[in-house]
Amino acid sequence: MSQDTETLSLDDARALLRAAFLRSGVPEDRAASVAAALVAAEAEGQVGHGFSRLEDYAAQVRSGKIIADAPLRIDQPAPSSLVIDAGYGFAFPALDLAVERGSHVALTQGTASVGITRSHHCGALSVSVDRFAQQGLVALMVANSPVAIAPWGARTPVYGTNPIAFAAPRGDGPPLVIDLSLSVVARGKVLNAKKAGTEIPAGWALDAEGHPTTNAEAALEGSMQPIGGPKGTALALMVEILSTVMTGANFSKDAGSFFTADGSRPGVGQHLTLYRPPQDLDTFTARLEQLLSLIESLEGTRVPGSRRLEALDKARKDGIAVPKRYLDVAHELATATV
Amino acid sequence: MSQDTETLSLDDARALLRAAFLRSGVPEDRAASVAAALVAAEAEGQVGHGFSRLEDYAAQVRSGKIIADAPLRIDQPAPSSLVIDAGYGFAFPALDLAVERGSHVALTQGTASVGITRSHHCGALSVSVDRFAQQGLVALMVANSPVAIAPWGARTPVYGTNPIAFAAPRGDGPPLVIDLSLSVVARGKVLNAKKAGTEIPAGWALDAEGHPTTNAEAALEGSMQPIGGPKGTALALMVEILSTVMTGANFSKDAGSFFTADGSRPGVGQHLTLYRPPQDLDTFTARLEQLLSLIESLEGTRVPGSRRLEALDKARKDGIAVPKRYLDVAHELATATV
Repeated sequence: MSQDTETLSLDDARALLRAAFLRSGVPEDRAASVAAALVAAEAEGQVGHGFSRLEDYAAQVRSGKIIADAPLRIDQPAPSSLVIDAGYGFAFPALDLAVERGSHVALTQGTASVGITRSHHCGALSVSVDRFAQQGLVALMVANSPVAIAPWGARTPVYGTNPIAFAAPRGDGPPLVIDLSLSVVARGKVLNAKKAGTEIPAGWALDAEGHPTTNAEAALEGSMQPIGGPKGTALALMVEILSTVMTGANFSKDAGSFFTADGSRPGVGQHLTLYRPPQDLDTFTARLEQLLSLIESLEGTRVPGSRRLEALDKARKDGIAVPKRYLDVAHELATATV
Repeated sequence: MSQDTETLSLDDARALLRAAFLRSGVPEDRAASVAAALVAAEAEGQVGHGFSRLEDYAAQVRSGKIIADAPLRIDQPAPSSLVIDAGYGFAFPALDLAVERGSHVALTQGTASVGITRSHHCGALSVSVDRFAQQGLVALMVANSPVAIAPWGARTPVYGTNPIAFAAPRGDGPPLVIDLSLSVVARGKVLNAKKAGTEIPAGWALDAEGHPTTNAEAALEGSMQPIGGPKGTALALMVEILSTVMTGANFSKDAGSFFTADGSRPGVGQHLTLYRPPQDLDTFTARLEQLLSLIESLEGTRVPGSRRLEALDKARKDGIAVPKRYLDVAHELATATV
């Protein structure tokens, strides 16, 4: 590994992040929630949603952009519908509440929707949908995020990368998990190209005039290309409506950055739909296994999420390799005097 | 117009198709249901789901591939969950039942899911989701269909074009409607190119070996390219699970053709999720209007479904232009002695 890293067990990683958040002014239960979410993402190999977020999160807690002790409010406007107000705090405690209360509603009512409003970065959606599937539920999750994608044909970004995630329980072993954003690639890849001074491939991004570009800097001033052209932007609008209009959260265009300590709050939304399989769970998982075995039997392909599961297995056995620069931040925050 | 057409009012078109199905052995209420669905699609400009289907549908009724008088069964395994068994009949009567019963459940419970199993071609999904939105519901619909798309990297198609549709109520005027399939283009476009003896653009399809092709014939023996590469096939798997594993319907790979009178039955599935906006409807539509006005204010883009609405307006005012060859079939069937 070219980067200077140190390997930590998942328990040690959680304990370290928890201490860092605690010392940064995050209440104990919230600190544990955020630490668990970041380590879960890191364990899946989603390093962009792991330790790398600590410094920015902590700075936003200090500046008050994240209200770390915001009381969570939950409403049940109808028997199968919940709305959680994250109060401009972290998304993860709201997601924990969604797992607890939403699962109960879905298991008893058959179907449930859970909207989360005035929220923040929700990390790897795969981590969240996986938790519902482990309780025997099929889960569909969408989220909006600060602007990245323009409506098809326009120059001005209106949508975030607006991810869609899905999970379904399997009989033996971990759930099937799908998690994708609606941009061709993550904006982070363009940032990396800019840092490295390299061009980006055609098809990734548009410049501020709405023209395709291979210049990373121009791309960052423009917008990310959606998957499938107008089909991708139609899906982005669907995600935007579920995440914001349905929940009361900020539109992507009004959402402040997930990274900077200053500026307006993100106030984004997340939306979950939870389904208890109508037949019994064994019938459901047996049929799902038929479908997935068929895919596994084909040459050249894999079931989505296979790499994620390998990363998870490895992380549980061997721990995770965390860049030293992130660990330095964590140790510094964890040992700071409040 | 180069094609020889005749213009019919929507009422006349429905009456003609209804008579044609009736004389083909379809019970009266079912004939009206199928006729209404085909004309609604035709009125939206979705001619591939309109009059062009009559001949094949009628032949399938005669051969028994479509069981036109199959009793519809509806189960409610949980308060917010319905499963409708279409009994290898037409999809449209099952969709009518979903509109009636599913809407009631969603309006009272807040959220509802409706699975339809042992079904057939469901036509333009836009037509169905629009009906729920007109009752103040947000609707998400998915469906599977005979195989067209291969899992990413594989040669063998496993998924249908597996469409996703979405609708949301607007304060004034018709709902916002999104409807897209997960292939880059419809298979019909490749069929047209084959008939015309022209090449297809790169990026549409793969040959039987899984390689990109511009040869229409090779494409028809291979598979359709998904939008967004592996992201599109991940979405196709999600749609496949909701439409088949959740409902008990046939996998796309086991679904017989929607077109031929012989061969195995399609037995495909449809899945609907219906949401009553958690806040009151006026608040929901006011916020949606904010978002859509923003999109409408941008140069170079339009709100998805704009062309559909123009077609609908025109069809209501001026009627629909139907190719004479389809009308000949309709008149012949409608006047046949049973």
